[in-house]
Amino acid sequence: MPNRRAVFFVSDRTGITAEALGNSLLTQFDGFEFRKITIPFVDSPEAADRAIAQINESAERDGKRPIVISSIVDEKLSERVRESNARVLDFFQAFIAPLEQELSAKSSHAAGRSHGLRNSQEYFSRIEAINFTLAHDDGQSTKELHRAQVILVGVSRCGKTPTSLYLGLQCGIRCANFPLTPEDFERGTLPDSILPHREKLFGLTIASERLQAIRQERRPDSPYASATQCKREVLAAERLMESAGIPMLNSSTKSIEELATTILLQRNLDRHIF
Amino acid sequence: MPNRRAVFFVSDRTGITAEALGNSLLTQFDGFEFRKITIPFVDSPEAADRAIAQINESAERDGKRPIVISSIVDEKLSERVRESNARVLDFFQAFIAPLEQELSAKSSHAAGRSHGLRNSQEYFSRIEAINFTLAHDDGQSTKELHRAQVILVGVSRCGKTPTSLYLGLQCGIRCANFPLTPEDFERGTLPDSILPHREKLFGLTIASERLQAIRQERRPDSPYASATQCKREVLAAERLMESAGIPMLNSSTKSIEELATTILLQRNLDRHIF
Repeated sequence: MPNRRAVFFVSDRTGITAEALGNSLLTQFDGFEFRKITIPFVDSPEAADRAIAQINESAERDGKRPIVISSIVDEKLSERVRESNARVLDFFQAFIAPLEQELSAKSSHAAGRSHGLRNSQEYFSRIEAINFTLAHDDGQSTKELHRAQVILVGVSRCGKTPTSLYLGLQCGIRCANFPLTPEDFERGTLPDSILPHREKLFGLTIASERLQAIRQERRPDSPYASATQCKREVLAAERLMESAGIPMLNSSTKSIEELATTILLQRNLDRHIF
Repeated sequence: MPNRRAVFFVSDRTGITAEALGNSLLTQFDGFEFRKITIPFVDSPEAADRAIAQINESAERDGKRPIVISSIVDEKLSERVRESNARVLDFFQAFIAPLEQELSAKSSHAAGRSHGLRNSQEYFSRIEAINFTLAHDDGQSTKELHRAQVILVGVSRCGKTPTSLYLGLQCGIRCANFPLTPEDFERGTLPDSILPHREKLFGLTIASERLQAIRQERRPDSPYASATQCKREVLAAERLMESAGIPMLNSSTKSIEELATTILLQRNLDRHIF
């Protein structure tokens, strides 16, 4: 039986940073089953007391004190949370003091501003990247391709859409994506509409077995999902991209985050951090 | 002149956690201008040396040592980075030891597994949430609304699409969205197709000045973007949602992350942490 433990992510704002940090740490411990609970918007004594009650109940029920990853800027509130019946890892407490010292400045201790709305311009540019990406999904539109920062190409269902959406939504990058189809392979050249933008193209490829599994979910037992078809398309797409000198990434063993990060790095693009 | 300082986010994987943590800390310091550089995939001595060279060059050029937020699991590599000419905040170093103690277990020290591809099932369910959200954007499809976990409603351009995409892509939630239009206001009832799913509906509203600014970007000087039209639609939508007993959030002053977190909290839905 695995070792079980409750883990609370407690934050004065969305809890997204606490979750990212906490998960990163928890993945280092094998053989545990962590029950994860996020408590966001702990920005008042009442909210802190409710969070503490929930943490203490969990400790009692499990007979084991939970782990709490806390990201609360207000010192009084975070102290309060540290007194719960739990092992509290408080990252503001750990890092604000050394930063204050390094910057010779006092922190503002204003409630978590990360993942909040900072200014309209930033919001508009994020929305614009999302709209651009949606409008240019799967080759739907080509008239504004010159405004794209990246154009992903590859066979149908190799991961272009999720990666594009991630780049738009989470990195503020205008990313179009364009399918490579059996007609392109027959002709042996890239589609006309993306040819003028060759320097922005980035290829995604995929193991044919994985492609088959994904297409099978989508259109069970269709020719489109057959092993032969998947193998043939992947091979032809790789050849086409290689001969056109397009950089290529294999999406089979990479998460959306890893794909996006690698593309930005290779294309020398900065992601916007929201 | 603002106080400038270079900040490096150094990671053995994507750097997303280091960025989240670092930004959260940096927002606490007013009056600084931080130049942010992410160095992902520092997973070999050679990559570490390249990162260190970049950090040290920056220190020399600026005449001020940079701040480094480091998230590298491998102890030898992270030690190496700590010897650069910088103030290094190393979050594995800070938190792994107390966690090991609390769990009475050794951490695996396997290179960062967060934001990586853990298993196919998780990947498929994420992709499914994204596909569902895309297929049900802006009322495009209604036939699978019974499978939605949330259905966002509101006037055109009040923030439904970005919030839905965020919920799909970043939280693994099947989120549909459906516009409320002048025809609905005239009729005075919710659209027929969403009526059977009232318990899943969640309303977004927006300040009419902000809506006007957003629509003005979209279709400059159209009746659609006029002050009167925006005011009228917002008021009518709020009335309709109120009378139907739909919970409502104002998107004007909230980030996408805050909207998504609040919706999940109020609907008692767990977000999947990728």
